[in-house]
Amino acid sequence: MSSESEPSAAGAAFGVLLTVAYDGGPFSGFARQPNARTVAGELDGAVRAIDARASVVRGSSRTDAGVHALGQRVAFDTALDLPARNWALALNSHLPSEIAIARAARVASGFTPRFCAVEKTYRYVVLQSELRDPFHERRAWRVGERLNHELMRAAAAPLIGEHDFEAFRGAQDTREDTVRKLVRIEVRTASSDARLLEIVVTGNRFMYRMVRIIAGALVDVGRGRIDPDAPRLALERRERTLLGITAPPDGLYLDHVVMDDDGEEAWPVISAK
Amino acid sequence: MSSESEPSAAGAAFGVLLTVAYDGGPFSGFARQPNARTVAGELDGAVRAIDARASVVRGSSRTDAGVHALGQRVAFDTALDLPARNWALALNSHLPSEIAIARAARVASGFTPRFCAVEKTYRYVVLQSELRDPFHERRAWRVGERLNHELMRAAAAPLIGEHDFEAFRGAQDTREDTVRKLVRIEVRTASSDARLLEIVVTGNRFMYRMVRIIAGALVDVGRGRIDPDAPRLALERRERTLLGITAPPDGLYLDHVVMDDDGEEAWPVISAK
Repeated sequence: MSSESEPSAAGAAFGVLLTVAYDGGPFSGFARQPNARTVAGELDGAVRAIDARASVVRGSSRTDAGVHALGQRVAFDTALDLPARNWALALNSHLPSEIAIARAARVASGFTPRFCAVEKTYRYVVLQSELRDPFHERRAWRVGERLNHELMRAAAAPLIGEHDFEAFRGAQDTREDTVRKLVRIEVRTASSDARLLEIVVTGNRFMYRMVRIIAGALVDVGRGRIDPDAPRLALERRERTLLGITAPPDGLYLDHVVMDDDGEEAWPVISAK
Repeated sequence: MSSESEPSAAGAAFGVLLTVAYDGGPFSGFARQPNARTVAGELDGAVRAIDARASVVRGSSRTDAGVHALGQRVAFDTALDLPARNWALALNSHLPSEIAIARAARVASGFTPRFCAVEKTYRYVVLQSELRDPFHERRAWRVGERLNHELMRAAAAPLIGEHDFEAFRGAQDTREDTVRKLVRIEVRTASSDARLLEIVVTGNRFMYRMVRIIAGALVDVGRGRIDPDAPRLALERRERTLLGITAPPDGLYLDHVVMDDDGEEAWPVISAK
């Protein structure tokens, strides 16, 4: 469909949808800000280096400072008729080493990932080690204790389903609608390294710091600092203070964003590979 | 034995043997140099912050600039009678984030890891991906092609055993004795990520750049640039030019150093954990 569509008012005939991986360590988050290095700002710069008249990028999720992504989705509009694969390779040559395009697809101009995202999966990585590990520095939350995974799973179970997650958001989040649906919370040992615990959370939409508050509560359950029943009680009573600490950004990864089915059908996706 | 030994002339009654992990990216190699940031230099600084009269550190292997380690072995002498675990924790608090002590043990003063190392295992990591990956930046050698693992295994097989490896060393290596024994070369896909190929090499001793020359040759075999018979011929003819390129330092890890049995018995090892 994209190739037959008329040029938009701005002359942008094409949309490009990217899957972006980044090490969030050096950035002040995804969303562009004046006088700060952001992922969106870097992507804008790379896109404009190839097409000075292209739109700014539109992301699916505003990841916080220090948060990583394997599968952030980002779109922009351009009048340049380049194959998706060429976009991926050309953008990578203009991006810093901490950001890489993993996939590119042609979509209709105006495609807005935030509106088309129907499911997101975040992964929170905990390094259970008394001693530091240079290869997980700023890429995992290190805790000195071995965590009780069974207690963590029991504490997580009541969160699955559609609930009012008012207690599970940062103070800066002031949205009225606090009902969200979580379809999965998995607590597992990483296949690559027995010291790594992964908390995988899949849901429809997330509030500010919601995954980090869940991860912080589950880790505090796993090391015996709060009761395994605390997440359920916090949900029912809408009481943030029952949940212990917010996990630091270092361990959080936006792994995967599922786009609306209509979108996928309407805008044929051409893989970069 | 260490606790009963007499203080040495310098007053150093104890030796400490460390297992050290480091991300080699920011360092000009292991060996100390004037006006350069080195792993040994950083370790010296951390040891001296705890005991100003301690010896400098002695490493088992001089890893090159950019080369990583999970299991470098390093010893030093001190008059301070601290438990091994305390040494590990105290040193970690004085080291930069790219270097961490993974284990510490008490040994006799004067213990010299280089003389006691009987077997070393290096791992070379190749990222097979046309597109960059921020999480493997400077930690793997990225090649755009899928490599033929079977051809690489066939090319590696003739290197196993005791041979004259004169062809397999950097030009700077001028040692007379070029006979080395490799007990294993494994070519495998990493369990954590199907894009990662690992070349694991275990041998008694290694010459300058030997593992990187082996890895470079095997990768060039795997992508069809040189003949699978080239490593065997280079060995027989002692001809470096048959072997293709030297793999970059980014993908190389010193995984494990086995110490001489007598050493382990003579100097009881107290694990840090």
